[in-house]
Amino acid sequence: MDFNEHTATQAVQESFRDTASPRLHELLDALTHHLHAFVREVKPSIHEWEQAIEFLTAVGHTCTDTRQEFVLLSDVLGVSMLVETLNENEGGTESTVLGPFHMVESPPRALGDSIDLVGEAEPCLVSGHVVDTDGTPLPGAEVDVWQCNEKGFYDVQQPGIQPAGNGRGLFHTDAEGRFHFRTVVPSHYPIPTDGPIGRFLEATGRHPYRPAHIHFIVRAEGHTPLTTHVFVAGSPYLDSDAVFAVKQSLIVEFAGPTDENPVRHTEFDLTLTREPA
Amino acid sequence: MDFNEHTATQAVQESFRDTASPRLHELLDALTHHLHAFVREVKPSIHEWEQAIEFLTAVGHTCTDTRQEFVLLSDVLGVSMLVETLNENEGGTESTVLGPFHMVESPPRALGDSIDLVGEAEPCLVSGHVVDTDGTPLPGAEVDVWQCNEKGFYDVQQPGIQPAGNGRGLFHTDAEGRFHFRTVVPSHYPIPTDGPIGRFLEATGRHPYRPAHIHFIVRAEGHTPLTTHVFVAGSPYLDSDAVFAVKQSLIVEFAGPTDENPVRHTEFDLTLTREPA
Ligand SMILES: [Fe+2]
Ligand SMILES: [Fe+2]
Repeated sequence: MDFNEHTATQAVQESFRDTASPRLHELLDALTHHLHAFVREVKPSIHEWEQAIEFLTAVGHTCTDTRQEFVLLSDVLGVSMLVETLNENEGGTESTVLGPFHMVESPPRALGDSIDLVGEAEPCLVSGHVVDTDGTPLPGAEVDVWQCNEKGFYDVQQPGIQPAGNGRGLFHTDAEGRFHFRTVVPSHYPIPTDGPIGRFLEATGRHPYRPAHIHFIVRAEGHTPLTTHVFVAGSPYLDSDAVFAVKQSLIVEFAGPTDENPVRHTEFDLTLTREPA
Repeated sequence: MDFNEHTATQAVQESFRDTASPRLHELLDALTHHLHAFVREVKPSIHEWEQAIEFLTAVGHTCTDTRQEFVLLSDVLGVSMLVETLNENEGGTESTVLGPFHMVESPPRALGDSIDLVGEAEPCLVSGHVVDTDGTPLPGAEVDVWQCNEKGFYDVQQPGIQPAGNGRGLFHTDAEGRFHFRTVVPSHYPIPTDGPIGRFLEATGRHPYRPAHIHFIVRAEGHTPLTTHVFVAGSPYLDSDAVFAVKQSLIVEFAGPTDENPVRHTEFDLTLTREPA
């Protein structure tokens, strides 16, 4: 029988019958179902299909070692956040998106070090504990941190202006499960707008801004890794993050400076859930 | 309210409320609905999401001026064929996929010319008429032809081996609406397997072959352009085309050689539908 509007989905699904991995088979079966349903619903013209091909190609050509435009695409469509939320572990600190800027390894640093390698903006102390869901501190936990500077740029966006590794650090908690480091308060920032995702946001009347935040990936033996942010209370765009990543529980105060505490600081705990046995 | 599994789709759909183009708004509204439904159904792990990003990035990085891996992806998922079928015009020659090899312009040629610039394989005559749905011949119709050679390669796949423009020609029908040109009988061939789509087909246990065919785009004033193939009757893979493009009505005999007709030949008409008034 000819491939037509009515037989198309089944024909493609049947073509996957010999897929070696059962999980890949399941993913492709569902992908075919939903993708074809989308196409049947909107009936794209040939020209629209060509535009979609050109858009995806442009997204691919924008990806480099230091830029991930497909992550941005996933982010602005809410897919990254949905995947993150579906994988969330009950009881731990809430997770949020990885984002496109974790493409270089964070340099190992000692507790107390500064991740601000420039020293031109107001310093800020960040501290807290990594704990289990029952409150037990987790010594030796890995705390991978990255953030933009006070002007809203990550190091990889400003080679030659920021030293490599600026705003990044890989720490390990001490015997009490505590981490602490110095930095600058990050700024809200636009996701990169000079590529296809920027044009996409413009065409859809959306602003490109994200509220100020610090990224974390936290790992401890026997526990599920946590990818999250802490957001700076009072930052603009907390209610309209371009990538839908804000959760109320992740907003923290960056207090000071006051007379008693002359340096700005923030303190919060990061809670990991135990790995399923 | 926080973005979560239940509020995600609506939040993303609402973010598109200021989209200037109503059609783009409609497309993104439906895309968000179906894409999120897919993600909720399969609940991808973070690692699976990362693999999807890597796959799409590799597809993008494989695209060049002479290679369109996203078209291949659309093809092997049956999306190209579904879009083509949804845009089909009742009453004309059936349409089929554009495919990824129409990325260079076909050189203008005179009726009777050969599109085989190499001359090492058995020659073949191709002829027919471009007609309206009522059978009226259409003089001056543009017949854009491209095909692979007898070994299954398009010119752009073998720079330095095939001259540029081999297997391609842009013809115009004569006063009787007739076209005719010389060529070689194309071979069945594998779609390019040295990139991400090749790995995809291998992982899914699918062969990469397409049955032998000649591509056509036909245009005539006042008529809707037609993108189609003619398939060579008896070719392997007519019942399992890797890109789902075979329609029974598009299979034609390439007859001969016989004593009366010493040269192989095929003859078929291509029917265009009138543009909506
Ligand atoms: Fe960020
Ligand atoms: Fe082809």
